[in-house]
Amino acid sequence: MRSAPALLFYADTHSSRDLLYFGRFECHDPFIALRHEGKKIAVLNALEFGRGLKESGFDQILALEPLLAEVRPAGSGPRPTPAEIIALLAAKLRIRRLLVPEEFPAGLLERLRALHLDVTVAIGPVLPEREIKDAREAGAIRAGNRVAAAGFAAAEALLRRAKTSGRKLLLDGTPLTSERVRLAIEIACLEAGGLALDTIVAGGDQACDPHCRGTGPLRPGELIIIDIFPRHAATGYHGDMTRTYLKGRASAEQRALVEAVAAAQRAARKVLRGGAISAAVHAECVKVFEARGYQTKSTPKGAVGFFHGTGHGLGLAVHEAPRVSAPVKEPLKTGAVVTVEPGLYYPGLGGCRIEDVAWLTDTGHKLLSKHPYAWEIA
Amino acid sequence: MRSAPALLFYADTHSSRDLLYFGRFECHDPFIALRHEGKKIAVLNALEFGRGLKESGFDQILALEPLLAEVRPAGSGPRPTPAEIIALLAAKLRIRRLLVPEEFPAGLLERLRALHLDVTVAIGPVLPEREIKDAREAGAIRAGNRVAAAGFAAAEALLRRAKTSGRKLLLDGTPLTSERVRLAIEIACLEAGGLALDTIVAGGDQACDPHCRGTGPLRPGELIIIDIFPRHAATGYHGDMTRTYLKGRASAEQRALVEAVAAAQRAARKVLRGGAISAAVHAECVKVFEARGYQTKSTPKGAVGFFHGTGHGLGLAVHEAPRVSAPVKEPLKTGAVVTVEPGLYYPGLGGCRIEDVAWLTDTGHKLLSKHPYAWEIA
Repeated sequence: MRSAPALLFYADTHSSRDLLYFGRFECHDPFIALRHEGKKIAVLNALEFGRGLKESGFDQILALEPLLAEVRPAGSGPRPTPAEIIALLAAKLRIRRLLVPEEFPAGLLERLRALHLDVTVAIGPVLPEREIKDAREAGAIRAGNRVAAAGFAAAEALLRRAKTSGRKLLLDGTPLTSERVRLAIEIACLEAGGLALDTIVAGGDQACDPHCRGTGPLRPGELIIIDIFPRHAATGYHGDMTRTYLKGRASAEQRALVEAVAAAQRAARKVLRGGAISAAVHAECVKVFEARGYQTKSTPKGAVGFFHGTGHGLGLAVHEAPRVSAPVKEPLKTGAVVTVEPGLYYPGLGGCRIEDVAWLTDTGHKLLSKHPYAWEIA
Repeated sequence: MRSAPALLFYADTHSSRDLLYFGRFECHDPFIALRHEGKKIAVLNALEFGRGLKESGFDQILALEPLLAEVRPAGSGPRPTPAEIIALLAAKLRIRRLLVPEEFPAGLLERLRALHLDVTVAIGPVLPEREIKDAREAGAIRAGNRVAAAGFAAAEALLRRAKTSGRKLLLDGTPLTSERVRLAIEIACLEAGGLALDTIVAGGDQACDPHCRGTGPLRPGELIIIDIFPRHAATGYHGDMTRTYLKGRASAEQRALVEAVAAAQRAARKVLRGGAISAAVHAECVKVFEARGYQTKSTPKGAVGFFHGTGHGLGLAVHEAPRVSAPVKEPLKTGAVVTVEPGLYYPGLGGCRIEDVAWLTDTGHKLLSKHPYAWEIA
């Protein structure tokens, strides 16, 4: 029987969340890591070595510098490349075959093969276990959502303090913009121990483009989507929540839209558990929208209605496995953490999305997000 | 004569600063981009298409959805892969050969080759012109450093307000920590229009490990290194500056250390220009330190003295080409932007680093950073 290939990473943990998951160690410069015969091994330079010993989840940490000297003494030629170090390690550890993730750098792959190493590129995830969260991870995601909730509280405070003046909102005499609300959210998140990047604060028709972050003055009587997905600084795990607001009094159509989205979220949550088919959870949202007459269709100016998935996995990345959407016919796994975020978007009327986070059990799920749903702000 | 290969990217612009430079367009999901016969071409999905047309520097933007349908109509099989889309594009555009960067994903490389595309992995940078900054870029880096300066002002305000109480610093009755100073810096940077990640606020012996971000109480009479490298939100370019502080009165040894680092920075700046040999600029710092008796050496607990390079290129990434350091015997290029950041580190005495940013001209350089050097805070 051939032994299993050793799993090889060469990345920084900003680019590879798999490597962060694997070693539980943040490192912003690329480094070599291996899984060999069940052991997790990292090669760290002198700047990172001590921190790695103290903080990381690696079973063994090798110092880079002696390996460099073993390949080629300093001064006797160019500095050894990562490929040469990996080849030395493979020889020392008697590794016959290597498996690398799909995102592994192509240049290094070619150099390893030029050194006659037997390297296979994986198809699909190399750490599928990352999809299943344990209690520690669920707690970290809950902490990420607490950070998000601090952001919503800050946004609500600004909207409450703002005064309506014609078609504008004024705060302390100047227009309340997406940018000002975003800044207040980002500061509140920092103070709560997290980092909110690319927060969405989008009002009116801007909110109908789910990738638009929002810019310029916010208006009274418009639906405003706020989507906050901060990274919890202490653990690296993300929260991800969305609330929709309106300053002033909503119209009947706006109220019906928001109620439909809330109802869709409740319907999805009713069937959301480990073992539920992903597409079936999504279909619950679609059913609610269709029953209430909200059509989803393409128009020359883009899609309207409910044209994105119901949710996605959440963890060390904001988007990770699994997806909760129509094309996915597989069951969701117990222990997965997913967002539940139906939305409706109609230019002219506006957009609404409500997003919470669920940790799946065999019989249902536990919510990992908590913040009120009150949305009309007087 | 064979025509030049088309340059192919498949990345998000968080992971690939080259792609961000190439298209001047932020996109957080991976997308296909090509340079073919001098034209910059991107393939964007419906969510990004409109923004790409409006904001990006691409000459041509192709909609992804019609290409997907051309490969395989929806419902008639699995969703087409990026490799299949690239193969379709290559056929349409009559591209015979492709060149991909070293960081290109290995899995996609293999799939392209399985589709019989002729793909070469580049050795070295695919966009070497990125090293040379034009006036727009220099202005953006200067704006990044203005954000950093706002961070220093916030840190200084806290240190000024802090009261010495025995071996502690108290602010509003509780210990002043690295974490509190970092939070104040991060908030000030956000308010100034930038995002400061991983800011270093390290006092005492912590500052002697240049990768230590700093943690716990700051102490009176200790050197405190603060290194801020924010991303200017409007442009994506970074600032990168370091100042060293001390709350209270410095000892003669501390004063001599700080003066030596300042003198080394001045010496390096005297010779810093386009055409200067990188190693020779670094050697100016080394000369100053040696003349003043500051030894650099390895100890069982790590290196002491001046054990890092004098500087690095700065732009869309915090670290990019060129390096200003001993092993680099090539001349620096006019138009490059580099940091100048000598430092000295001696556990027991403390660490000092002073960092500014220079844009190289044929005869010298223009400073792109500006903040006072006053460091003893009463």
